Amino acid sequence: MMRDVQSEPANHRVEVDKVGVKDVKYPIVVLDKAKKEQHTIADINMYVNLPHRFRGAHMSRFIEILNKHRGRMSMHNMEGLLCEIEKTLAADSAHLEMSFAYFIEKAAPISGAKSLTEYVCKFIAAHKKGKLDFILEVNVPVTSLCPCSKEISEQSAHNQRSLVTVQLKSTEFVWIEDVIALVENSASCELYSLLKREDEKYVTEKAYARPMFAEDVVREIAQKLEADDNVTWYTVASENYESIHNHNAYAYIEKKIPR
Amino acid sequence: MMRDVQSEPANHRVEVDKVGVKDVKYPIVVLDKAKKEQHTIADINMYVNLPHRFRGAHMSRFIEILNKHRGRMSMHNMEGLLCEIEKTLAADSAHLEMSFAYFIEKAAPISGAKSLTEYVCKFIAAHKKGKLDFILEVNVPVTSLCPCSKEISEQSAHNQRSLVTVQLKSTEFVWIEDVIALVENSASCELYSLLKREDEKYVTEKAYARPMFAEDVVREIAQKLEADDNVTWYTVASENYESIHNHNAYAYIEKKIPR
Amino acid sequence: MMRDVQSEPANHRVEVDKVGVKDVKYPIVVLDKAKKEQHTIADINMYVNLPHRFRGAHMSRFIEILNKHRGRMSMHNMEGLLCEIEKTLAADSAHLEMSFAYFIEKAAPISGAKSLTEYVCKFIAAHKKGKLDFILEVNVPVTSLCPCSKEISEQSAHNQRSLVTVQLKSTEFVWIEDVIALVENSASCELYSLLKREDEKYVTEKAYARPMFAEDVVREIAQKLEADDNVTWYTVASENYESIHNHNAYAYIEKKIPR
Amino acid sequence: MMRDVQSEPANHRVEVDKVGVKDVKYPIVVLDKAKKEQHTIADINMYVNLPHRFRGAHMSRFIEILNKHRGRMSMHNMEGLLCEIEKTLAADSAHLEMSFAYFIEKAAPISGAKSLTEYVCKFIAAHKKGKLDFILEVNVPVTSLCPCSKEISEQSAHNQRSLVTVQLKSTEFVWIEDVIALVENSASCELYSLLKREDEKYVTEKAYARPMFAEDVVREIAQKLEADDNVTWYTVASENYESIHNHNAYAYIEKKIPR
Repeated sequence: MMRDVQSEPANHRVEVDKVGVKDVKYPIVVLDKAKKEQHTIADINMYVNLPHRFRGAHMSRFIEILNKHRGRMSMHNMEGLLCEIEKTLAADSAHLEMSFAYFIEKAAPISGAKSLTEYVCKFIAAHKKGKLDFILEVNVPVTSLCPCSKEISEQSAHNQRSLVTVQLKSTEFVWIEDVIALVENSASCELYSLLKREDEKYVTEKAYARPMFAEDVVREIAQKLEADDNVTWYTVASENYESIHNHNAYAYIEKKIPR
Repeated sequence: MMRDVQSEPANHRVEVDKVGVKDVKYPIVVLDKAKKEQHTIADINMYVNLPHRFRGAHMSRFIEILNKHRGRMSMHNMEGLLCEIEKTLAADSAHLEMSFAYFIEKAAPISGAKSLTEYVCKFIAAHKKGKLDFILEVNVPVTSLCPCSKEISEQSAHNQRSLVTVQLKSTEFVWIEDVIALVENSASCELYSLLKREDEKYVTEKAYARPMFAEDVVREIAQKLEADDNVTWYTVASENYESIHNHNAYAYIEKKIPR
Repeated sequence: MMRDVQSEPANHRVEVDKVGVKDVKYPIVVLDKAKKEQHTIADINMYVNLPHRFRGAHMSRFIEILNKHRGRMSMHNMEGLLCEIEKTLAADSAHLEMSFAYFIEKAAPISGAKSLTEYVCKFIAAHKKGKLDFILEVNVPVTSLCPCSKEISEQSAHNQRSLVTVQLKSTEFVWIEDVIALVENSASCELYSLLKREDEKYVTEKAYARPMFAEDVVREIAQKLEADDNVTWYTVASENYESIHNHNAYAYIEKKIPR
Repeated sequence: MMRDVQSEPANHRVEVDKVGVKDVKYPIVVLDKAKKEQHTIADINMYVNLPHRFRGAHMSRFIEILNKHRGRMSMHNMEGLLCEIEKTLAADSAHLEMSFAYFIEKAAPISGAKSLTEYVCKFIAAHKKGKLDFILEVNVPVTSLCPCSKEISEQSAHNQRSLVTVQLKSTEFVWIEDVIALVENSASCELYSLLKREDEKYVTEKAYARPMFAEDVVREIAQKLEADDNVTWYTVASENYESIHNHNAYAYIEKKIPR
């Protein structure tokens, strides 16, 4: 019989916090508010802790569990999945990080022309001492238009694409769609994949009428998240790909909300 | 006179934790153990906190300070630099993250042929309430050879390039060179840019004689860091670009050491 | 009525070779040999030429066409799609580049355990003067084991993950699956997402029994492509992520085959 | 004595077009118009052809040659370097691709405040049948402001950072600085790392006064390159990171100029 090197005791009496597989690309299915479910592709990390009585983790078991659950990945069944990982790998804690593209159909503001927009999302789940910690991350590209540039210039103002990243913990299930809507209503303007001329006029004028610094955007989103009774922790960042510099402007807030 | 929009009060009574510039590419000079100093190129983030009495930060001031100090960037003068940022931007806390390539000349193990090897390093510095928090990060590519594969196979064993990342806080100045040496002595074998045939024989046989899981590598490094009286906190990760899979194996330890 | 700036003549009498949209992320459906079709996500570029009688292209039309055809993207309907782009944008030539992840279920060599492996593929299609030029690109990660290292070392040999990229033009339809099989049979060993211990023994020993340089791999693939009567042009590259260096070994062949 | 596997004949009678090392990070010195020389870091590929009488290339020799010449890398000594590669590796042709960051000190347009701006450059050199083929690539980030958006909107216009890439062959030596100046004069506005408020007003108004499509930018640059008697071939591309879309607008011209 083959020797099971991983199951032998470690040379060093050191516990390893996370052992597992990283950058596994896998097709998965996630919940979709409009269409019930959405097929997408994820970049996945799966880890367990490793006590010093074991030299290594049996890495193939992560892939077996992923295979079994990939058809239904949601906030609802994260706890079950992490418990199964713990049991299968004889571990006390388990982690799953899963980044994926999520598409939403949007209608252009005037013409109503429809197209799909991509939002990169991430589930960051940990199970330790019988307690689940689940973070939903949603990345929302928006337009930002600089209030200082508008104020000091005779005409126009520099504007650019910005990437807003929200991470949150909630006591209730949260739709990705709702986080996106919250962010898109808190920027100079939202983005679309398809804009006809009448739409381009609209978004240009809307952004000019709503000048916002990266600082303004994260503050407005923070205030809305605080008004949601279910949110217990959040981070919000805005990275603006400045049209006048070759570097980015950045603003970031992290907050724990005692409920 | 032009209106100073940034200095006006914010619309929302929300403090922003970090406001600043991100992904600024700039040439800098860092300390070099062998040659006194080394010219390199950094990817830099600089932030301050922003109280709600201000709407925005004056971003250009970050670049002015970077310009002034870029000729001498080290653990020694981080505190002065961060205090200057706080003062110039009227802030209570300041952050600097600075990632850069660092080159060391190495001699091949048998032929002695010399070449340069690149190690990506990072300074992560924060100054809050008058206290400096400084993290040195060093990334060291190494060879790892799988103990399980060696044990169960008639001949050979799968091996691969792995990237080991060490982050540490120390009460004393730490040379990048010393962290690299510690890591390279804790893997199946170290890497070289230039190997003649006699060297290739040596590194192949050395790696086969020292099979190590990602788990073994991080444990050995952790134990050595704990033995250093000056280290008060560390993380160590090993990411193995498995030659038999299209994903990576990963192990990670984080530890605070009360001294 | 709004002015149509794009349709006005250009200031300079210069024809632009390619004008269009780049890095559009969109869900698409492609043909699958085993399951008939596969839902995936593409990174898409679409271009037309722009004669000097026009100042700009109407970019939104690319997205409209993509929207219409995304449910069926294959070598079969590329010509129709490119002709539609030409017509809709009043152009003489059209280009489509479409990179996407493609998954295949594979059984481990001994245990038969099933898992999915990702292969990044690309369609590169151009239509000029009524003639279609279609290139299929398939990226296949494999194991390579160094023949020199095996020959000169007492035991073992350095091995690593390599990425083989094949591009080809063919007079007949080509299945992605067939290109992958051709490449996987031309390396030291193929990769799997899931390997049990008996499988790990098998792949370790197989790779040791089939040592191949990057040069050997591209030559073997080239010879097989030349033996296919339908292939009229190909490139084949192998990039080996050397386990003993921090840089890669590379080999590349390009060949036009007069038929 | 150790067997020299690489020098043995190949199994297949297939010539390999390029064999060598890829993604070698190395510190180099390049020519600087203002300061005579500039220390930077390059990402380097070096290849030779491999006739079928050899099974493999001796990869370590590339690094030895790089080591010897890294202190002086310019268009002037590319031919000598490539000939040395050919001779040392017993090859008929040699290739060198070398991408590096290049910094220029610029003064802000009104305040005159000085800062450094990074431009990524590339040398692409090939030596075949005794003939040198040298391409200089310069990447210049600029501001572009949309003429259509300006025309149809009551106020303002969407604008964004764009990346312009010029590649050229010239019968005479070309300064990187001169290519950058040519491009920066052909966009809505140029970028700066450091802008005070009076400068921000200037660049905002300048961009609004010079609206340009990606198509306009590449046409203007093309026309200027054609007016240079030494340029025998060029490509020019502009990729606009649209502030109103999550994808980019793109325009590209390639031209050979018979002299």
